[in-house]
Amino acid sequence: MYSVLFGSRGSTHAIPNSLSYKTYYFYQKIDHFGFLSNATFKQRYLVNEQHWHQENGPILFYTGNEGDITWFCNNTGFMWDVAEELGAMLVFAEHRYYGESLPFGEESYSDAKHLNYLTSEQALADFAVLIKALKRTIPGARDSPVIAIGGSYGGMLAAWMRMKYPHIVVGALAASAPIWQFTDMVPCDVFYKIVTNDFHKAEKGCAESIRGSWKAINNVTSTAEGLQWLSSEFSLCAPLKNKVEAAAFKSWLQETWVNLAMVDYPYEANFLQPLPRWPIKVVCQYLTHPTVPDQQLLQGISKAVKVYYNYTGNAPCLNMSQTATGSLGAMGWYYQACTEMVMPMCSNGVGDMFEPQAWDFQAYAEECRALFGVTPRPDWADTIYGGKNIKSHSNILFSNGGLDPWSGGGVTKSLSDSLVAIVIPDGAHHLDLRYNTNYDPQSVMDARDTEVKYMKLWIKQAANSP
Amino acid sequence: MYSVLFGSRGSTHAIPNSLSYKTYYFYQKIDHFGFLSNATFKQRYLVNEQHWHQENGPILFYTGNEGDITWFCNNTGFMWDVAEELGAMLVFAEHRYYGESLPFGEESYSDAKHLNYLTSEQALADFAVLIKALKRTIPGARDSPVIAIGGSYGGMLAAWMRMKYPHIVVGALAASAPIWQFTDMVPCDVFYKIVTNDFHKAEKGCAESIRGSWKAINNVTSTAEGLQWLSSEFSLCAPLKNKVEAAAFKSWLQETWVNLAMVDYPYEANFLQPLPRWPIKVVCQYLTHPTVPDQQLLQGISKAVKVYYNYTGNAPCLNMSQTATGSLGAMGWYYQACTEMVMPMCSNGVGDMFEPQAWDFQAYAEECRALFGVTPRPDWADTIYGGKNIKSHSNILFSNGGLDPWSGGGVTKSLSDSLVAIVIPDGAHHLDLRYNTNYDPQSVMDARDTEVKYMKLWIKQAANSP
Repeated sequence: MYSVLFGSRGSTHAIPNSLSYKTYYFYQKIDHFGFLSNATFKQRYLVNEQHWHQENGPILFYTGNEGDITWFCNNTGFMWDVAEELGAMLVFAEHRYYGESLPFGEESYSDAKHLNYLTSEQALADFAVLIKALKRTIPGARDSPVIAIGGSYGGMLAAWMRMKYPHIVVGALAASAPIWQFTDMVPCDVFYKIVTNDFHKAEKGCAESIRGSWKAINNVTSTAEGLQWLSSEFSLCAPLKNKVEAAAFKSWLQETWVNLAMVDYPYEANFLQPLPRWPIKVVCQYLTHPTVPDQQLLQGISKAVKVYYNYTGNAPCLNMSQTATGSLGAMGWYYQACTEMVMPMCSNGVGDMFEPQAWDFQAYAEECRALFGVTPRPDWADTIYGGKNIKSHSNILFSNGGLDPWSGGGVTKSLSDSLVAIVIPDGAHHLDLRYNTNYDPQSVMDARDTEVKYMKLWIKQAANSP
Repeated sequence: MYSVLFGSRGSTHAIPNSLSYKTYYFYQKIDHFGFLSNATFKQRYLVNEQHWHQENGPILFYTGNEGDITWFCNNTGFMWDVAEELGAMLVFAEHRYYGESLPFGEESYSDAKHLNYLTSEQALADFAVLIKALKRTIPGARDSPVIAIGGSYGGMLAAWMRMKYPHIVVGALAASAPIWQFTDMVPCDVFYKIVTNDFHKAEKGCAESIRGSWKAINNVTSTAEGLQWLSSEFSLCAPLKNKVEAAAFKSWLQETWVNLAMVDYPYEANFLQPLPRWPIKVVCQYLTHPTVPDQQLLQGISKAVKVYYNYTGNAPCLNMSQTATGSLGAMGWYYQACTEMVMPMCSNGVGDMFEPQAWDFQAYAEECRALFGVTPRPDWADTIYGGKNIKSHSNILFSNGGLDPWSGGGVTKSLSDSLVAIVIPDGAHHLDLRYNTNYDPQSVMDARDTEVKYMKLWIKQAANSP
């Protein structure tokens, strides 16, 4: 998940190597769970066989999430890094309703009727059907063990794939997968607390400055001149005109801090946005004096925000409507958040640096009905995927970064010998899935070693059971 | 499953004890897997708490199959027999589209659109949602371990319930559940071979007589007088008029032999029909001379068939349109067989006593399209439920009767320490789920002991894991 709020989004990433894959399309049934229609759509998937040991060598299968699959392919260097060692084929499967995999083409998002097949269950069934077809049709793949890999929502799908289709995938690496960020599983304030902590640890005064900024914005935007001054100071493409837009401005800032926490990587990277090494440290150098007057505080915030939105120096102005890459499918994710993926979030301004905001399911549901004509089912994820009661499953690695706000809803303690939690204290959102670099902290190198060790174990287990 | 052929059905059973249960209704979403509509229907369920240990005592949950739930309730004496020993609450949940649990009332079967929510996945989701609601609302049930129990298709659902919702049921007793009676899992002729073997073992010449009867029928029905003679000899309510009806007559006989194999119980019972003790033995006493002339052979067949259809002596004539109890929902099962539950069957007249009939999926699919406007998906059950590759699951008992033709598609060898096969050599279709009687063979008594032992183990496991 690259969005917490209505109106948030995820970002393109420079491709470190030139990746070589072939693009294919597979005809999937639009509805796996009903027989009224046999209509199909073309699901895109990408394949690299360069290092594959053709006689039943393993398949690493990326369970695509809410965006263009080429973007996930380019940002999951880990799979490319380990392919040779494992003799693995790489497959990246696009999630329905994202990228090119649109069940009803341009009509896919037109109304609730067309959106009706955008569910995690249908997506998992797509993956299951595709994997069976690949094993049936690719010479030498019949007995290939398949490992599901994914990050964020894709990590949830990887874990659920193993839970629901253990006959199809021998194991799963679920990176930064907040499978417990649902109602009554973790406290709703855990997410913003972690974001806050990242800023708090980066520099003295940083979290406090942000906490103080909300009131400063309220003060400044109470006058027309203030609105104008703020718009100019932040180089906004569309100047703020009133209180409602000032509120949207605060939401945009909040999302910016969240995104920074997600991508606080130890090297220059372009995931949600092009950013420097350890971007929160860079941001926080402008936020060391929380008690200065309002305008001075907001000048610091402006400089900080521009690290995120204009690290390249090429942005003529800041556009509040886009906080991250266009490769993510924002509308699709909002729909999913409005149906199955109801993830309660709250803040109180004390344990965190944000304005107090309670979790209000009724208001949330109203917004969903207004936007899509659907009513969220907050209990469903627990019913179908088991919530905290998942010990009977096996062969799932849950990796989480200590810097990543989504780790609050993740599995950070091992549940059994084969439901293993891997914590990367210095890691942000699925850092372990990214390419090896010279800047990697020891913790992520250790995590990847553990991940490869378990994958080899699963492959061996599969070879030993006929 | 109480039907193999298009046109077969399952029968009411005398209630041995006066069962005391309360009837409830629960509002279920018609579509658990889509958000276009939140429409609900009333699912019926029956509850007995007489022996329940209210502080987290176990719940035995019958996963209802293709018929009126009161009929399954009355024919699952095992649950009533063990309730006291286990301190268990009994719940019998009706399967959607059967009995009173009709999603669209009288319209439920009107067309493919209304039938679209009749799937095993939706039924399992109903059970999951209902169990969660019971545990939430019944005082003392919050931490009650739930064990899924079912026979036949209900046994498949019990097993699948544990596979797909292991967080909701701690284990499953899947009695006579042919979870492998799908494409490419077992030979298609296994079913009729077992039927044949039952008749073969019962009496010398019996299977041979039946094998010879098909040709005798062809011979006799080649003339108008023959058709008339046969109709009269069999006391058919509607005399046979032509070749097409003669073919239907043969199908009806075939189904009769199948049903006898299913209900070859060691005592008088009324499950599919009122029948004597070991009915195949009774039937076979009329079928000891396979080489007699056609009419004489068919006179024997007629006497045999009347054991099944007129044991009570009250039937004024034999009605070919009904082979078993009206408590089963034949139409619903045909629809399920035409969508997910595609179970290949074939005979060759050599290894079995039936006319040679190859498995012809194309013809089958055509019939489904004509009947319901749907096309069967023969691979789907394997994709969603794992086929033969189910070793990663746990806590499932698969019991099968050696006399039961469905045992050919069942799990008759243990797959692991906790996927345990129980074979009852003298048992017909889910004999173990019926009441204890003085006529029970030792094998079924042993089976029930094993079943109780494992249920106690699961209950203990659940108590030990918080």
